Amino acid sequence: MNTHFDRLRHIRIVLVEPSHPGNIGAAARAMGTMGLAQLVLVNPERFPDPEAAARAASATHVMEQVRVVSDLDDALQGCDWVIGCTARLRHVSLTGQSPRQAARHIMDLPPARSVAVLFGRERSGLTNDELARCHAAVHIDTDDQCTSLNLGAAVQVLCYELRMAALASADDGEQTADGEQESDLANHDELEQFFKHLDAALHRIDFHKGRAPEGVMRRLRRVFLRAELRQRELRILHGILADAERMAGFGWQHLGKEPPTGQTDAD
Amino acid sequence: MNTHFDRLRHIRIVLVEPSHPGNIGAAARAMGTMGLAQLVLVNPERFPDPEAAARAASATHVMEQVRVVSDLDDALQGCDWVIGCTARLRHVSLTGQSPRQAARHIMDLPPARSVAVLFGRERSGLTNDELARCHAAVHIDTDDQCTSLNLGAAVQVLCYELRMAALASADDGEQTADGEQESDLANHDELEQFFKHLDAALHRIDFHKGRAPEGVMRRLRRVFLRAELRQRELRILHGILADAERMAGFGWQHLGKEPPTGQTDAD
Repeated sequence: MNTHFDRLRHIRIVLVEPSHPGNIGAAARAMGTMGLAQLVLVNPERFPDPEAAARAASATHVMEQVRVVSDLDDALQGCDWVIGCTARLRHVSLTGQSPRQAARHIMDLPPARSVAVLFGRERSGLTNDELARCHAAVHIDTDDQCTSLNLGAAVQVLCYELRMAALASADDGEQTADGEQESDLANHDELEQFFKHLDAALHRIDFHKGRAPEGVMRRLRRVFLRAELRQRELRILHGILADAERMAGFGWQHLGKEPPTGQTDAD
Repeated sequence: MNTHFDRLRHIRIVLVEPSHPGNIGAAARAMGTMGLAQLVLVNPERFPDPEAAARAASATHVMEQVRVVSDLDDALQGCDWVIGCTARLRHVSLTGQSPRQAARHIMDLPPARSVAVLFGRERSGLTNDELARCHAAVHIDTDDQCTSLNLGAAVQVLCYELRMAALASADDGEQTADGEQESDLANHDELEQFFKHLDAALHRIDFHKGRAPEGVMRRLRRVFLRAELRQRELRILHGILADAERMAGFGWQHLGKEPPTGQTDAD
């Protein structure tokens, strides 16, 4: 069993006071197809209900495990990290994340951390008190003219991103499989250090040839930021730059010239 | 009006013979919240229907524009590029894409190209004949135990990824804004050519030092594939490699040695 997919099965999806049983079934089906299994309902208006069962379709294993509780504390018992889904990020004093960022964050937490994703009422979402229990908030971007996502659809989007994040983590793990924890993303400082090294190496191999280096550095920053570099990958890139610099050093000696030393302030 | 979001409004979503009016409404709501507007129904079992209207909720502008046609040819009239959503990628002789790849691909097509995304029947999906009209197939990865995604949920996932791709394109456009079309992704052949150049350059700067180069190349491929390189970025990277090779050439001369020539079969 792949641990990343195993992890999906342990993420708790909590629906607070859902009023339509159809949405409960839709949430269960969204979870089941994406590999999630733990559904908790806080004071559902109607449950169990034939409409919930019908909409859940083949996700019977999720429906059989549904836990119904009467308050949020019970729902969150044992959870170490809670994220709340909200339509009004502006009024919330929490770190706001996109579904993609939230999913990545959850998959990067240590496996022992128990995670819950909280969804509010169809009409009014989560209250401020409920959001106050969350460590972060997740917001699904919508069209300005049509901002109200269906509850089941919101659960689908989050579960989909969680599955995509699990797949990405599994790819990392499988392709390397050499014992080292490969998913450790390089942090801000490590990336800035790399950009400094890259800039110095470009001067050393005489890439700029007198042109202003800022535009190229800006583009290269974008490339490597998009790549979401792991620490180990960063070490390889540093190694490549060091060898290019070393060989270029011999080259400058051969040419009997001093290498250019200009240092760009990487912006 | 941002052209990328404008583009969303022109993507046609086609549902082939949907049997549940609720799914039509759910699809309309998914589209409306994500900024899409063109819904075409091929032989729906029941439409219009109060359940469709109820599930569409505030996406009334999408519902008002729905086109109902009696065959797929009518639905696809004027479309230049068609992608079909399918659960059985293995039996389909089409390029299979994930929703993320498909959305990116669609957003990278020239703006004049008219695009349709095709969804099949709830029970049986698209027929082989219908898939034969498609230029590509898109598959939403699911759990092995629970593979049947709801039709409205599938539309939600695709529309969500289309919106995310539009947001990313809009970001690119803002960040570059130098007149050049920056979003042209490098294609497969261009990337393979780059990996060949990278491999040759690593030999030239003596990066491998006798070690097997396959593992490093595999990691570097992953880095640069994740970065989703644009053509212009690729040209910069080729330029850097060429200068590193040039300086290294002088270096080898200085050392009075022959540069290593080993060529790795990049896998």
